[in-house]
Amino acid sequence: MKIAQVAPLFESVPPRGYGGTERVVSYLTEELVRQGHEVTLYAAGDSVTEARLVSPVEKSIRPALGDISWMAYHAMQLDMLCRDAPRFDILHFHTDITHLPLARMLDVPHVTTLHGRLDLPFLAPLYGHFADTPLVSISEAQRKPLPEARWMATVHHGLPDDLFSFSPEADDYFAFVGRISREKRLDRAIEIAERSGVPIRIGAKIDDADRLFFEDEIAPLFSKPCVTYLGEVSQEEKRKLLERARALLLPIDWPEPFGLVMIEALSCGTPVIAYRNGSVEEIIDDGVTGFIVDNQEQAVEAALRIDSIDRHACRRAFEDRFTADRMARDYLRVYELCIRAFDEVSSMAVRAVTAKRTIA
Amino acid sequence: MKIAQVAPLFESVPPRGYGGTERVVSYLTEELVRQGHEVTLYAAGDSVTEARLVSPVEKSIRPALGDISWMAYHAMQLDMLCRDAPRFDILHFHTDITHLPLARMLDVPHVTTLHGRLDLPFLAPLYGHFADTPLVSISEAQRKPLPEARWMATVHHGLPDDLFSFSPEADDYFAFVGRISREKRLDRAIEIAERSGVPIRIGAKIDDADRLFFEDEIAPLFSKPCVTYLGEVSQEEKRKLLERARALLLPIDWPEPFGLVMIEALSCGTPVIAYRNGSVEEIIDDGVTGFIVDNQEQAVEAALRIDSIDRHACRRAFEDRFTADRMARDYLRVYELCIRAFDEVSSMAVRAVTAKRTIA
Repeated sequence: MKIAQVAPLFESVPPRGYGGTERVVSYLTEELVRQGHEVTLYAAGDSVTEARLVSPVEKSIRPALGDISWMAYHAMQLDMLCRDAPRFDILHFHTDITHLPLARMLDVPHVTTLHGRLDLPFLAPLYGHFADTPLVSISEAQRKPLPEARWMATVHHGLPDDLFSFSPEADDYFAFVGRISREKRLDRAIEIAERSGVPIRIGAKIDDADRLFFEDEIAPLFSKPCVTYLGEVSQEEKRKLLERARALLLPIDWPEPFGLVMIEALSCGTPVIAYRNGSVEEIIDDGVTGFIVDNQEQAVEAALRIDSIDRHACRRAFEDRFTADRMARDYLRVYELCIRAFDEVSSMAVRAVTAKRTIA
Repeated sequence: MKIAQVAPLFESVPPRGYGGTERVVSYLTEELVRQGHEVTLYAAGDSVTEARLVSPVEKSIRPALGDISWMAYHAMQLDMLCRDAPRFDILHFHTDITHLPLARMLDVPHVTTLHGRLDLPFLAPLYGHFADTPLVSISEAQRKPLPEARWMATVHHGLPDDLFSFSPEADDYFAFVGRISREKRLDRAIEIAERSGVPIRIGAKIDDADRLFFEDEIAPLFSKPCVTYLGEVSQEEKRKLLERARALLLPIDWPEPFGLVMIEALSCGTPVIAYRNGSVEEIIDDGVTGFIVDNQEQAVEAALRIDSIDRHACRRAFEDRFTADRMARDYLRVYELCIRAFDEVSSMAVRAVTAKRTIA
């Protein structure tokens, strides 16, 4: 199949540091290539891919955002895509909003994966307006605020199966991985570790926007003897951190649309203790690959009996449900669905024109 | 002529407070309606116009920008325009970048007025990429950094001729009107007033981004006895301020793309003392409608002989060159030019297809 993958230009594909969307686009793109498809990746010029790379800009634009307009580069990217569009069987957008009016005008089947939270009030009128645009959600939970949109499927994210290694044994610590922002509730994670008597190792980025929150509410907790803060971790550091952890703590306070770190942990055989929110119940099997909790008491109790979870079962859940191979096959089915739906509308339009001519 | 005017959604058209682009779109739209054209205005829902108003959003979006994505509403706006596009003779965009890939795909003549400064490094690759997109500059100076773009014309802004009244007499003060930002150099204006012994009245907005600059560098100057600060002024307050001023001071330190306040002053008969920069030399006739200066010595000297300027000459310059009527007629010529160019390209394309068929 001839496939265009259209990624945001903020980070390279894959991203050097944090960046969920661009990371998933990378896994999907490389796996589709591996499965023999002809893929063109529209992404920042410092991306690394086996697909054909088309880019309007040499480097990912996040570091330059104070001086440039993100829209300028995305406008060029969309224009490059428009020129190439007739060559593709399907266009797969990961750019949320920017492409919507344009995609509707193109005479090529397309689909858009929404990667963010969808419970923001301004999104309902937006996707209500673009009600015929085919969409993919990354969890069933994610799509709940927009029941009227045109959902073609939910496709859970997947990882290359050799990205992390299965570790049958763990060292004595819990892991926390992510951004240090209010809704990730690192404070809860530290309390869980402290109350259950297990050290916590934290690999987490602090965005500028969260700097004040960090200094006021999180930094004071870092002096506790159970806490080790590693800063923002590279892929390699994250791998080590997750593989040897007794559990990943994810005490989130927001509707996480997917939560890639959960399946990263599972792929190491590391169970997850997560608050019930967003996609958690779709990813974690309570009592099998971790524990789903509703408050700190339950979380501490889960931490105390974490060794009852079989690490082999975690890895098995990953291999069954969360590999890049499974994700790519799911998307190929979605592409076929979108192409069929597009052809039906086109032939209806041709029939309508023919009927009009016959009547005339 | 059937004309679509496409305005940004950040402010209403016209804006309630500060907002140059939306103000000019309003003057142009109302004047085109007055001249008998069928105009549709794509703008925020709280706009006030004699044209047909089409809007994806009830209120201008600036106040909500923390909570919403500006792109969401502009995507809906562009989509609404696409559906209506075949009804128009010409689409006139004032949205800088967002519409560029889409406009290129539409089978309708279009033109884009660029309202901002164009000397930012990322704009050259952008308008180089969109090299066939017809553009209008608002001054000759503005377009200098992008000589390769497809400039159809320069159209200076214009005002309704009854918006301000000619005032043959002035009170004893200089006026400063605009934002209090570094490049507007209010500090210079205050020094010019002080050294020439004339009070200065300041009607100026402080953006959040400029708050620190204001407190560090400008606020201390406000205790000088010659200074009166009026805050952000309404249209009515600005009118009073400009009509009775001995001169407008515009000691700018940036390439002002147009500088609407200069022609607002001229329309009152108020001369302008401006630093040589950006559009200034195109708008002010040195020694006739004000003075163009290069340093503070020249500015003070100009301030001391400001009464040598004939206020009637200022109003005459306005009536000859800066009315909305003149602006609308200029744009109508641009529209005709763009329609002709569009038709030529279309008929060339038809000829190319025919030739190809003949050869085949």
